[in-house]
Amino acid sequence: VKPLFQNIAIVGLGLIGGSIALELKRKKLSPRIIGISRSAENRREALKLKAVDAAYSRVGSFLSEADLVILAAPVKAILPLLKNLKGFLKKDAMVTDVGSVKGEIVRAASRMKGFHFIGGHPIAGTERSGMKAAERDLFRGRKWILTPAPGTSKPCLKRLTSLIENLGARVVLMDPGEHDRIFSAVSHLPNVVAYALANAVASLEDPDLPRFAGSSLRDMTRVAGSPPEMWRDICLSNREEILRRMRNFEGVFGRLRKAVEKGNPSGLFKFFDQGRRFRKKLEAQRTL
Amino acid sequence: VKPLFQNIAIVGLGLIGGSIALELKRKKLSPRIIGISRSAENRREALKLKAVDAAYSRVGSFLSEADLVILAAPVKAILPLLKNLKGFLKKDAMVTDVGSVKGEIVRAASRMKGFHFIGGHPIAGTERSGMKAAERDLFRGRKWILTPAPGTSKPCLKRLTSLIENLGARVVLMDPGEHDRIFSAVSHLPNVVAYALANAVASLEDPDLPRFAGSSLRDMTRVAGSPPEMWRDICLSNREEILRRMRNFEGVFGRLRKAVEKGNPSGLFKFFDQGRRFRKKLEAQRTL
Repeated sequence: VKPLFQNIAIVGLGLIGGSIALELKRKKLSPRIIGISRSAENRREALKLKAVDAAYSRVGSFLSEADLVILAAPVKAILPLLKNLKGFLKKDAMVTDVGSVKGEIVRAASRMKGFHFIGGHPIAGTERSGMKAAERDLFRGRKWILTPAPGTSKPCLKRLTSLIENLGARVVLMDPGEHDRIFSAVSHLPNVVAYALANAVASLEDPDLPRFAGSSLRDMTRVAGSPPEMWRDICLSNREEILRRMRNFEGVFGRLRKAVEKGNPSGLFKFFDQGRRFRKKLEAQRTL
Repeated sequence: VKPLFQNIAIVGLGLIGGSIALELKRKKLSPRIIGISRSAENRREALKLKAVDAAYSRVGSFLSEADLVILAAPVKAILPLLKNLKGFLKKDAMVTDVGSVKGEIVRAASRMKGFHFIGGHPIAGTERSGMKAAERDLFRGRKWILTPAPGTSKPCLKRLTSLIENLGARVVLMDPGEHDRIFSAVSHLPNVVAYALANAVASLEDPDLPRFAGSSLRDMTRVAGSPPEMWRDICLSNREEILRRMRNFEGVFGRLRKAVEKGNPSGLFKFFDQGRRFRKKLEAQRTL
């Protein structure tokens, strides 16, 4: 079988970019895979693991060989990267990204000419980062959102979909704005809550506290182990939707605080019972 | 070896009471174990698993045989239970509890006469509940807080400590007020935040949301699967400390919301970086 892409360049060799490279190589999905990363450590690690055939510290003329470029950088770095590299691309090259916010990127990239851009977001990841954290099978059974724009070429969308399915993920097509609305609720809000909880407990400055942390505090702060630049960028890029969710959360939390102030047993029971019902609904859904 | 206690009564056959019974039996730590539970299902299950030698639906004269009574009920049920059963106790029987809040219970129980009370709190558990959720090894390697009062008998404390160590846990002695202060931060706050997050996402009433929930929302709401009555009681019983933590959390969360409003990159980075540092500190600690 002829591979879908003869030459794939991955810009960013962190957890996501690195895991894509590993899986492309393992499944022999492309004869040549190039990694671009500013981090010497990530480049070294990618070469050592044979996840890439070559690694560069910055974009350059070698990109003119690529059929597909995957931008796997923090959300706010993606558009500047795209502007830097588009002069090197061969005509009709395909470009996709893996950013957690889609509206801003897709709006800007769809206006650029000379290449085919399709926004993407694999719903996979852990709180770890860097090529060292890359995992085979990271995408197996996971959803991978693609956000085609009105002018997106159908054959390009089909090729990219095939590649992603070969990585083990299931492609879901979504409008970029709809994506940002949904993920502000199911991902961005939980993550900022985790960081706020970690900051709140840290602000108590009690050296005894971590020693007595049980599984609840551990679970509730796990995602706060992610790189700060990633969440800074997501908050800047999906600001309006995240603000809406944060204000809603503040209102809900304030209602609970008032029920505690009043020592209102039935109000407290109702609140906790509703929370539990939602949790049971989540449990009933297959894990992504 | 002579067992530490000839007859142990466990009031409440839920996750904690049930797991204690299973482990006492498995390790042959007492020749006779009696379970008391209002739930016919929990009694049936406990008998089926041979976790208890006999099961009753309510306290009664059979308690006069018990050397040790373990109260494993929701926090607000413990003092009413103790008042109901103390008339049945033999002179100098020992009583302990497993409630997640200690001040209120220890203050009241220490004033009662005719038996030896020592407050306890095993730092173990899952979000599941009932005798069906009971696990052997639930306490292995976990901390188990005991909160002796000034008048607590030293030999009683020693016997109870030995029993708990035989269950696989490590006993930590703590002042009841200190306990409630520490656990409001490391347990009660994370749990109420989880319920608030579940309520906030549920309030959006978008049937699509659970389908796209990734691991962050799942992690962050896991503990909201716990019984509502448990958290109602903890909030009522440790109201002041929990309110203090909730207000502090609201302040911290409000600071983050303002940084998002302003689109302040360095403020956001600093906030997420501080959260991550605390998380790393937690990871460096042994899991309880």
